[in-house]
Parts: sequence; structure tokens; C-alpha cells
Amino acid sequence: MSLEKSTRAVALTRHEGGGVGAGVLREQADVLAVEEPLEIRVGGRSVAVVMRTPGHDRELAAGFLVTEGILRRREEVVDMVYCVMRREAPEITGGTPVPHGARENVLDVLLAPGVAVDWARLTRNVFTSSSCGICSKASIEAVQGQFPAIAGAVVPRRAVLAGLPEKLRAAQAGFAATGGLHASALFDEDGVMLVAREDVGRHNALDKVVGHGFFAERLPLAGRILLVSGRVSFEIMQKALAAGVPCVAAISAPTSAAVEFAQASGQVLVGFLRGERMNVYAGTLAG
Amino acid sequence: MSLEKSTRAVALTRHEGGGVGAGVLREQADVLAVEEPLEIRVGGRSVAVVMRTPGHDRELAAGFLVTEGILRRREEVVDMVYCVMRREAPEITGGTPVPHGARENVLDVLLAPGVAVDWARLTRNVFTSSSCGICSKASIEAVQGQFPAIAGAVVPRRAVLAGLPEKLRAAQAGFAATGGLHASALFDEDGVMLVAREDVGRHNALDKVVGHGFFAERLPLAGRILLVSGRVSFEIMQKALAAGVPCVAAISAPTSAAVEFAQASGQVLVGFLRGERMNVYAGTLAG
Repeated sequence: MSLEKSTRAVALTRHEGGGVGAGVLREQADVLAVEEPLEIRVGGRSVAVVMRTPGHDRELAAGFLVTEGILRRREEVVDMVYCVMRREAPEITGGTPVPHGARENVLDVLLAPGVAVDWARLTRNVFTSSSCGICSKASIEAVQGQFPAIAGAVVPRRAVLAGLPEKLRAAQAGFAATGGLHASALFDEDGVMLVAREDVGRHNALDKVVGHGFFAERLPLAGRILLVSGRVSFEIMQKALAAGVPCVAAISAPTSAAVEFAQASGQVLVGFLRGERMNVYAGTLAG
Repeated sequence: MSLEKSTRAVALTRHEGGGVGAGVLREQADVLAVEEPLEIRVGGRSVAVVMRTPGHDRELAAGFLVTEGILRRREEVVDMVYCVMRREAPEITGGTPVPHGARENVLDVLLAPGVAVDWARLTRNVFTSSSCGICSKASIEAVQGQFPAIAGAVVPRRAVLAGLPEKLRAAQAGFAATGGLHASALFDEDGVMLVAREDVGRHNALDKVVGHGFFAERLPLAGRILLVSGRVSFEIMQKALAAGVPCVAAISAPTSAAVEFAQASGQVLVGFLRGERMNVYAGTLAG
């Protein structure tokens, strides 16, 4: 990813260790992960504001809308354009420079003629529509009823999984510079990396990966392995299912709901993937 | 926190390292962080569904509503009660056991007579109301206009900050068991821990800490130091401001928007706090 957009230098005071009371103090510059709001619109209608790291915004918007059940196929979208605010025009601001980033923080998704959006889905009330009140089991069933079942299941090879974290790390230029960016990457069954994306929000990083598949017309992501840099929650599994990913692996821990989700949907779920060591919470591995 | 509610044992297959192709495989049990939905209602009206770790739900609801600008003082709340779903009654379910956790996943906040809620705030559209379009600067100004300015500023001592991570770790029973829980803790200026909370969601952990202060009638949290186990984003700073916390420290990295936020609000922001080593992004330290 372009570090120009995704990171920013700031001044700070660094206190170094060095024994009790002996801390060395240095004024210096540090590089931080950029976090800016992105307003996603569909046909001019505001759908969501997400705090994200700029870069791959169209993929983020597409992935977000796919995993919300709003978009399905590439041909539903004619174009995605940044909205230029009226008051940013020089004759209105009196020549005042537009704040950094403000020009690319509203993205409008233009739909093809005849494409109908089910706006009710955006209310995200799947949780409360169940008959048993509200619980993880009901939430999982509600989500799984919303998307097609997983096709193209994989039985990932252990040796392939073992090699993925190193490949992800090599692609995490922003994390290496800032220590503050999550990452998601997609691999084929042989461990070849197809796409990797970073973002301050781990859901955003995954949405960008899904959006990449959307524009490449590769959804559902049958036969693919998703690796996320952090933990796996209910919502990560929900997004993986929406994109048709049959195997999710994570460097860190899954939650109870993520495990229940994977078991119910037939997805493979691997956690604490640290080279040859890994925990398999759902599904089975080969090799 | 009670590990009985916040963690759950699951079966898994563990692959151990041990040279190429020599992985040892063991079937065993692992302990995961529990993630269950909680629906927060105010006077019967559904306000939000958050995926959270059960435990301290009333604090979570109170902290969430405080940081959303809905609640301010303890006396505004008469009680908080779990809703018992009708169909959970034995005569309706025919004796089928209610799913684990379903009984405590809807919490209704009962307001005192005469307390008016500004429902418009819940639309969370502070981002889009600014005159410059949308950008982190406008978002920060919108949030800072919503809550009182920080009172009771602190100049934290370096030696006090250096001791906080170890105290937080000692309080992270759930993380120690699962590796999958975030934590937030509040300290006084001498480094005495006042409260610590864990949750699968880092925003939830902070909301629980804020909710603890709400019920103890200690808001705003003037003169206090907040420590979070992970990164610091815009939203963490927003919640800290809503609770009146003058100093935020984090084990990991802040985002660009978090630094801008702290600088604009006069909060002290310390990142990468690793014992005596720490980065100061906003404000100054003593000692």
C-alpha cells in the first residue's frame, strides 16, 4: 500500500528506559497510522461513516456493501466517485486551502439502472429478529440465513498454513512503519498471496480484501484462505461468510461466537497461527 | 472479573511445531473469550446491539450511553433490568431450555421521571454536520463541541506511568486465560488502580470503566489516568473525553486522529507504554 496516504509523521517526546530516574528524553518524529472518516453513500444516500486508513477506498466501500448484503456483483456498480463539497470551491472558501483529506472522504457508489437496494438490511437488526430473544446462536442463524452457504470448501494443508504469517508480515509495510495497522490477506490453497490490505480498523482491512475480489469479479471467494493479523470475532466471520470464504486463519484468538459461527457454517477456523503451531477450532486440516 | 461468565471451554485440535512434517497433534480443550450480543434499551426503546463479553453489563450500558451523550448523572437512571422474553416462559417453549446467555442479553435502562433523552444524538451524524465536508479535524471539533472541556488536568509522573502496564496485566485474568480480551483500567495520579475491566471489544472495556464511574457518581473522571491494553483510535479518545479523562495511556500505537484529538482537547496522550519507555504525543509529563 502507499505509505504516503496511510501514514503520517508527527512530533513526539520519547522517554527511553535506562534505570530508575535515568530516562533519556528525546524530541523526535514518529510515523503514525492515518485514521480519517470515510462517508459511504449509495446513489447519493448516506449509508455509513467509517474511520479508516485512506487508500483502496473503493474496495473498502464495495467490501463493506457486499458484507452488509447490499451489493453482490460487479455489474451492479457503474462507478464510485468522490464527492466534491460545494463549499470547498475557491470562490466560497475565499481561497482557504481545503483541509488535508477532506476532498477524498465522501465516496458515492453509483448503481447501474434497475439495481434495487434493500435498505432495510442496513438497519442491521438481524440480531433482534430471532425467536429466542437474542443470543449468539440466534445471531449466527440470522446471518447465515442472509448469505448463500459456503461452496468450494477447502481442506487446507498444515504446511501451507504454517507459511502464511510470514507472507502477511512481509506485506505489512504500514504496520512495520507504525505498529498501528491491522491486516487481512487472501491466499489460494497453495499459499500464494492474492491480495493483502492494511487499515487501522480490522474490519476495514477485510472489507478492502473483499472489495478487491468484488472488482475482480471473483466473488464468492471459493477455495481461498483468509488470514487476519489479529483476533477473530463474530463480525469477521460474518464478513468472511458474505464473501464466501471457506477458511479463516488468525494470528491471535477467536471468540466463542466466532467458533460457533464457523462450526455452524462449515468454515475451517484456525487460531493462534504461529508457524507450525496452530489451533483448529472448526473443520479439519490435511497433511 | 468472573471467569465463569467471560470465558468458555471449547474442544479443538492443536498442532504443535516440531520440525518439517513432524507436527504433534493433540485433541484438547481450550478456553475462549465469550462474545455474546447485548441489546441496550432505554425505556423499552432499542438503542444498540453490541457484541460483548458478559459481565458488568449495567456498567457497559451506562458507559455506552454516557459516551454517546445520552446519560450524564447517576440520578437519571432508576434501574437497569434484563428483559425476560415472553417466549422463554416454559409454557411457550414447551419446556425447551432457554439457550445459554439468552436470558441476560437484553438490558433495559429505566429513566427517572422527567429525564429527557436527545434521541437525535444517537444517529451519530456528528461527522457529517460540519461545514468543511468531512475530515478528522471536523469530526474532532464536532465531538469536542458535544462534551464539556477537560477539567482537573493532570501532569502524570513518568515513574507512575511506567508502573501501570504491570498492574493492568495483573488484573487481566480473562486475557491470561484466553489471549483474546482487551482491557481498560483507571488509575489515580499516584498509580493506584481504581477499576479494571475486560471485554472482547476494546470500546466495551472502556465503556465498562466509564459506567463504573457513573454508578459511583465519580464522573467526570478529573485527575485520572486511563490505560488501554491495545491501540488508541479516534473513538477511544471520544469516549475518554465524554467521561472527562485528562490522560490516556496505551500499550500500543495511537492513530493520527487520536493524536490530533488529544492535542485539540488538552488531554495527555502516551503511547507504546512499555515500562520506562514511552512516547508522549500530546501534553507533557513530570519527573
